[in-house]
Amino acid sequence: VQEVECVNGDGKDLSALLADLAKVNNSRERASKLFQWLINPIPAKSFFRETWEKKPVLVQRKNPNYYKGLFSTAEFDRILREEDVQYGVNLDVTSYTNGTRETHNPPGRALPFTVWNFYKSGCSLRMLNPQAFSSTVWNVLSILQEQFGSMAGANIYLTPPGTQGFAPHYDDIEAFVVQLEGKKHWRVYNPRTEDEVLPMLSSSNFDQAEIGKPILEVVLEAGDLLYFPRGFIHQGDCLPEVHSLHITISSYQKNSWGDLLQRVVPAALEIAMEEDVEFRQGLPLDYLTYMGVQNSDKDDPRRTKFFIQIETLMKKLTNYAPVDAAVDQKARDFLHDCLPPMLTTEELASSVKGAWRRWERGQVMDDGARISTKTRVRVLRAGCARLCSDGDVVHLYYTTDNSRVYHKEEPKSFEIDAEHTDAMEFLIHSYPKFVTVGSLPCDSAEDKVALAELLFEKGIIHTEEPL
Amino acid sequence: VQEVECVNGDGKDLSALLADLAKVNNSRERASKLFQWLINPIPAKSFFRETWEKKPVLVQRKNPNYYKGLFSTAEFDRILREEDVQYGVNLDVTSYTNGTRETHNPPGRALPFTVWNFYKSGCSLRMLNPQAFSSTVWNVLSILQEQFGSMAGANIYLTPPGTQGFAPHYDDIEAFVVQLEGKKHWRVYNPRTEDEVLPMLSSSNFDQAEIGKPILEVVLEAGDLLYFPRGFIHQGDCLPEVHSLHITISSYQKNSWGDLLQRVVPAALEIAMEEDVEFRQGLPLDYLTYMGVQNSDKDDPRRTKFFIQIETLMKKLTNYAPVDAAVDQKARDFLHDCLPPMLTTEELASSVKGAWRRWERGQVMDDGARISTKTRVRVLRAGCARLCSDGDVVHLYYTTDNSRVYHKEEPKSFEIDAEHTDAMEFLIHSYPKFVTVGSLPCDSAEDKVALAELLFEKGIIHTEEPL
Amino acid sequence: VQEVECVNGDGKDLSALLADLAKVNNSRERASKLFQWLINPIPAKSFFRETWEKKPVLVQRKNPNYYKGLFSTAEFDRILREEDVQYGVNLDVTSYTNGTRETHNPPGRALPFTVWNFYKSGCSLRMLNPQAFSSTVWNVLSILQEQFGSMAGANIYLTPPGTQGFAPHYDDIEAFVVQLEGKKHWRVYNPRTEDEVLPMLSSSNFDQAEIGKPILEVVLEAGDLLYFPRGFIHQGDCLPEVHSLHITISSYQKNSWGDLLQRVVPAALEIAMEEDVEFRQGLPLDYLTYMGVQNSDKDDPRRTKFFIQIETLMKKLTNYAPVDAAVDQKARDFLHDCLPPMLTTEELASSVKGAWRRWERGQVMDDGARISTKTRVRVLRAGCARLCSDGDVVHLYYTTDNSRVYHKEEPKSFEIDAEHTDAMEFLIHSYPKFVTVGSLPCDSAEDKVALAELLFEKGIIHTEEPL
Amino acid sequence: VQEVECVNGDGKDLSALLADLAKVNNSRERASKLFQWLINPIPAKSFFRETWEKKPVLVQRKNPNYYKGLFSTAEFDRILREEDVQYGVNLDVTSYTNGTRETHNPPGRALPFTVWNFYKSGCSLRMLNPQAFSSTVWNVLSILQEQFGSMAGANIYLTPPGTQGFAPHYDDIEAFVVQLEGKKHWRVYNPRTEDEVLPMLSSSNFDQAEIGKPILEVVLEAGDLLYFPRGFIHQGDCLPEVHSLHITISSYQKNSWGDLLQRVVPAALEIAMEEDVEFRQGLPLDYLTYMGVQNSDKDDPRRTKFFIQIETLMKKLTNYAPVDAAVDQKARDFLHDCLPPMLTTEELASSVKGAWRRWERGQVMDDGARISTKTRVRVLRAGCARLCSDGDVVHLYYTTDNSRVYHKEEPKSFEIDAEHTDAMEFLIHSYPKFVTVGSLPCDSAEDKVALAELLFEKGIIHTEEPL
Repeated sequence: VQEVECVNGDGKDLSALLADLAKVNNSRERASKLFQWLINPIPAKSFFRETWEKKPVLVQRKNPNYYKGLFSTAEFDRILREEDVQYGVNLDVTSYTNGTRETHNPPGRALPFTVWNFYKSGCSLRMLNPQAFSSTVWNVLSILQEQFGSMAGANIYLTPPGTQGFAPHYDDIEAFVVQLEGKKHWRVYNPRTEDEVLPMLSSSNFDQAEIGKPILEVVLEAGDLLYFPRGFIHQGDCLPEVHSLHITISSYQKNSWGDLLQRVVPAALEIAMEEDVEFRQGLPLDYLTYMGVQNSDKDDPRRTKFFIQIETLMKKLTNYAPVDAAVDQKARDFLHDCLPPMLTTEELASSVKGAWRRWERGQVMDDGARISTKTRVRVLRAGCARLCSDGDVVHLYYTTDNSRVYHKEEPKSFEIDAEHTDAMEFLIHSYPKFVTVGSLPCDSAEDKVALAELLFEKGIIHTEEPL
Repeated sequence: VQEVECVNGDGKDLSALLADLAKVNNSRERASKLFQWLINPIPAKSFFRETWEKKPVLVQRKNPNYYKGLFSTAEFDRILREEDVQYGVNLDVTSYTNGTRETHNPPGRALPFTVWNFYKSGCSLRMLNPQAFSSTVWNVLSILQEQFGSMAGANIYLTPPGTQGFAPHYDDIEAFVVQLEGKKHWRVYNPRTEDEVLPMLSSSNFDQAEIGKPILEVVLEAGDLLYFPRGFIHQGDCLPEVHSLHITISSYQKNSWGDLLQRVVPAALEIAMEEDVEFRQGLPLDYLTYMGVQNSDKDDPRRTKFFIQIETLMKKLTNYAPVDAAVDQKARDFLHDCLPPMLTTEELASSVKGAWRRWERGQVMDDGARISTKTRVRVLRAGCARLCSDGDVVHLYYTTDNSRVYHKEEPKSFEIDAEHTDAMEFLIHSYPKFVTVGSLPCDSAEDKVALAELLFEKGIIHTEEPL
Repeated sequence: VQEVECVNGDGKDLSALLADLAKVNNSRERASKLFQWLINPIPAKSFFRETWEKKPVLVQRKNPNYYKGLFSTAEFDRILREEDVQYGVNLDVTSYTNGTRETHNPPGRALPFTVWNFYKSGCSLRMLNPQAFSSTVWNVLSILQEQFGSMAGANIYLTPPGTQGFAPHYDDIEAFVVQLEGKKHWRVYNPRTEDEVLPMLSSSNFDQAEIGKPILEVVLEAGDLLYFPRGFIHQGDCLPEVHSLHITISSYQKNSWGDLLQRVVPAALEIAMEEDVEFRQGLPLDYLTYMGVQNSDKDDPRRTKFFIQIETLMKKLTNYAPVDAAVDQKARDFLHDCLPPMLTTEELASSVKGAWRRWERGQVMDDGARISTKTRVRVLRAGCARLCSDGDVVHLYYTTDNSRVYHKEEPKSFEIDAEHTDAMEFLIHSYPKFVTVGSLPCDSAEDKVALAELLFEKGIIHTEEPL
Repeated sequence: VQEVECVNGDGKDLSALLADLAKVNNSRERASKLFQWLINPIPAKSFFRETWEKKPVLVQRKNPNYYKGLFSTAEFDRILREEDVQYGVNLDVTSYTNGTRETHNPPGRALPFTVWNFYKSGCSLRMLNPQAFSSTVWNVLSILQEQFGSMAGANIYLTPPGTQGFAPHYDDIEAFVVQLEGKKHWRVYNPRTEDEVLPMLSSSNFDQAEIGKPILEVVLEAGDLLYFPRGFIHQGDCLPEVHSLHITISSYQKNSWGDLLQRVVPAALEIAMEEDVEFRQGLPLDYLTYMGVQNSDKDDPRRTKFFIQIETLMKKLTNYAPVDAAVDQKARDFLHDCLPPMLTTEELASSVKGAWRRWERGQVMDDGARISTKTRVRVLRAGCARLCSDGDVVHLYYTTDNSRVYHKEEPKSFEIDAEHTDAMEFLIHSYPKFVTVGSLPCDSAEDKVALAELLFEKGIIHTEEPL
């Protein structure tokens, strides 16, 4: 049986924290601090060493305000009223009654009138991408994604008193259940078999009889945190007297060694076939007469020889594995999954999104300021842009034009000319330091300014001082 | 420099040979004998040991009748007159003049009137699938495919005196050039680089300046044979005074260890991810900060550790390699590529294609004979049917309903119930022996007869005596 | 009740007739004579005036040999044995027992062994395109299509004694039922309602209770003919003692005035909108407030005015109807539907398909004959080629490259340059006269010969004497 | 030459006007009043009688504030700053210099920094769907669409001093050019030919030499209006000293009698073919020998007869024209094109979008009010919902769930049961009167309330008093 740590913790108020974090110079450091706040008082280092991908953990704070400001039912109501929330796309209406799980989504826009009718009749509400509607959730997730190096997502769950909205199941992501309002009774179960440890896909809904006894049973209260790895079965239901609102923050979907190998291995074979004639040699003339399922019971020395040759060649494949190129493919997908950075007022003023130059009094006002070799710049975030090779050419992929809606925008990238790759690497590796445009290793001052202007217009870099 | 064997040989007349071969009881033996005739006097065993996939070889026979009956220009003319030969599909009109290679195909059907006009103006003619039009070519290739365990194809080339139809190039197949009429001047060149030894794809057309000096230069005469492996550059042109007709028999396209590995390796990874949790564990949180092309110059111990883990996992893959299942995939493709068997009169009479029961004198004549448990049967050819597993079920793939036109028919197969797989294996492994239907390892006599009837109606088995 | 003519007739033996017809100089005359033979002794003129599209007619000849040579069950057996007949494509196995109509097609090729098994168990056999397998059927239909100006098709029906293969139904074609062997008991019923007179689509299968009493009941014997228009319900069954073989020749599918208007009317509207500003004027500002189903009960003078304006514009449409262009669209479809002409020995010798020039004794034999201005030529058939306008350009559509398999080939056509249209019209309208190439109204002798060569190579024209 | 009216006018301030209009009880009346304001002082009645679709008209007001509040360059700047404006989708950057028209759109989001850079370099800016970004434009257009019974669209044009952004051309819509800021020099030209009067499609860009002399040349100043029908060529350029901002309001694209006939005529033919046997009768056997382009020069009495029959049938078509059903098809498209209504505060409070029932103090607050038979309701706008027949069933199409972005949402509709169609018609025709739910002609009180609840939840009806 899995041992479960139970600790109490306490931290800092969220809006203050976010204001403080905005002053942290390095986005990676910012991510670490925010993650530490999330799991306080467990030290992140020990969390990742002992708990992450291994076992559930519970933090009970007796501090209902710890996560205050992250999200609320009042915000839920506001969103329904003001935003274009669509049933089935942004909101699910569900119930789990007498062992039956149902979805009740009508077509079209979810308006408060009908949504609250559903809630009053005992249905649970799941908001699927709160980051598109709530700036705070967007801000928090966009910071955390730099901690995980993998997409950080979230769902909001609002459950009426005395009801349960979902059947027991396991997910394919690492889950941080953050209790925001009310209470919820949770039960967590071990993976049923070795094959379901760290599974690649989420499960279907289980019957109560299939899942054994919980290894953890607790009533979460506002301010509490419950973490469990993918594969751990879980279910939550409301006490008779009080509703529950929680947000589940998730990450590490399809982010395993195997997912990376799916890109490494076929590419390694392609390279081996090009470079190593042993891979191009013909199969034995008669191999179909002793290999194949039809012949698998045959005791034939040619079978042994054949297996050995396959093994030899597969082991040679490691010599041709294009690991960095495969990581670039994963990185490209991650940058596409990323939320765009949420800019502070200072960042806005010093980047293209808020750059001075506007229409005033019947004309374009412009103080003439332009990027010059003396302008000091840096990338907006440690991970907001990345050089990746696509065969012979190098592209810069970036997150700054992504949408808060998942994959609403195509992956964003542009080719970096060979003479600019050094400058681009220099810029990325200089972060968080600002460097002068003149210090970019390009051939000419024109080149340096042209590259900086391009990056500025794409929103990838900002200036130390507003232009 | 590649050393080239030059031997003279002699054999047997083709129509007599094919009549003799029809009496050979085992289709694999038949294939060996026919292949031996093709390359006489070189022993097949030494050919495959020393020459195949290694170097060109030439057989000069001084016997213009050695291959007589295989194909002729008179047959070419008959086909144009009687069959639906389409330019671009079945026939190419080409020229290679002053270093320029051109194709002159008009649209539509190739009629003798226009085809011979092209020929008279100096164009070469390439017939692309003579096996669809010539029964002899069909017969020869359908026998040889059992020798190669890989599709045997052929093109016919007719070249006017004093011309050349094709630029120097190499192909992606093992080539047996069989001179049928007239003479042709051939030059063969070594692969230009290691990368072009046993290449995966054919080359484009080369300039004369790109290919160096020939390692073999010869005038082929009727009855001669020239073999060269894929990757060897070659060109042939006609002497001023005489035309040339040759057939190139080919095999081993995409039949390398690498081609098989392309099916083994992704499947191995899929299995490993299901069975071995190490493949499902998450990547390091920060791997994007030190891996990828952007970081490839970094000297970071974490990079070394990452590479080692990739190598470890790739080496573990061999434990999960589903070799027989991957061979079955290749086998399925091969059975789809195969020509259908060309039946002898006796085979016709004892199989569904020619089975007694016909309309005569106003009614269906039927001597009442049916398959019973005493009927003795066997598969029509050693390789005409094959059991392959598709996940949980087993299918029987077969060639007997294939078309003489490449892939004109979809792959042919049907599911074999679990209680029939043993009987099916028994039948296949009994070949070339006939066995009684009663000896099939099925549950009941009805079952045995039902299976035999099914196989008989699909043309997969025939009976020892006509029904 | 529909009155039914019952006449006896007699004619000429088919092979002799076809030989005679081959000598008839004009393909349209040939078509008339063959059609007259089909319906003898009814004069074609009175048939088309009084019977065609109006009522059934029966010809009983007491001459079992009248249609001999057109098709036979022996030919059916030969086709199964030698040709690639596919169930569901070329052959249907059907039964109609106790009011239930079933189709029993297995997948794959129809071999005599299984087909005769079905027949012996009481199933009917319908061969769907006998013209692809039988030269005589091809010849007869390719002649008749010029009589109808609409595709002539055929099905063969072979029915075992004492059975019925099809439920009562009506078709969407004019049907000529030609009894070839044995006997069949037929019942024909009037269309059930005005809406089913000359229907656009075939019916589904009827119950016996739905169709009333037959207006015609007869036992057809070999040599007899039964005609009925589309919309007449019919069913046929075999007497207990004898099988039946008949061929149904059909035409006039989708060949009504309405089918032509479907091409005329939208085109007329398009032209009217381009040429007549009244069609481009805006609708009344408020028309949605009084028109539409929601307002259809309103008694509003604006509705009357609106209807009148629609009527006025629709009547004006006739001024813009591009009738000839629409006929060309129908003609294009008909030429695509057509069977290719079946050439006589003389036609073969004088056209590209059989033109002298062949491979003999190691070279192309060629007496040097070529088309010159003195060569006398004509189109192969009155209807084998047709000039049609496609917007601004003129194309020649032709049937000579069509396949005997329906629509296996794409529509065949090529553009005719403006300077060649007069010559092309001259050639078509000169038929059946041969004219010298020199007499073609082209600019130069080179032009005349080039056009003639092109038409000769496409098989559209032949020469008076072999080249 | 077209005579041009030049009048001066004056009206009311826009925000006051819109506030007043919100109090007008009937949306059609509201539309009339707003349109009258747009074209003041020309009376709408005489405008539609004498000017609409006939000739340009100019209103010079000497009142720069007449259209104030509709849109401004400051609003343009705000939109760039706050909204997701995409180049090529929402914004075009253009220039017309030395007779050359160019588009300069980069990919991606249009940010003020780059947009104002373009403007400063002399490029014109065209915002393509200001209604998606500006509530006032949305409000104005959503009102006007009820006046036109056809989609009302708009573009915004901002042009730097001394430049021209577009080449001379004509459009396929009725255009109302409303000068908002600065000045613009306009030239308007007659359609070049009869064929270009009220054209179906917009023109390409013209050279100055192709368009003749202007019939109207004027400098528009803020507060002025210029109207011209589709087909009138026009161009505008800025004076050296001042920029120009105008909005062009458009309507009547593809809204002609011919556009309606494209739906009436094919449907009429289909009905005629079903109901009238004359349309199903076969074409003459030999029509291909005298009809078609190939025979169009023939003087053949059969041609005359053929033409007469076509004309007779086409005239009969008017008897079968399903005019109301065709209008319904146009209505469906119009309702899909429509902007959703912009609700007043009162409308919001009395409709589903703002209905009471919200999350407060940890629970859903609900005063228990529900729709009952006594509730008084009406449709939100005269044209916001419409009953249309689709073959046998009736659907209600509605605009209230449309998006401000053109066709972002699919057409919205649901089926109305037969027993509810009368009630639905009653509701629609009762507008602008409120009626009690109890007065709906349904079978039961439950039915009445259920229908009203459905319509309320879709936002199609609102209540006289907030629920």
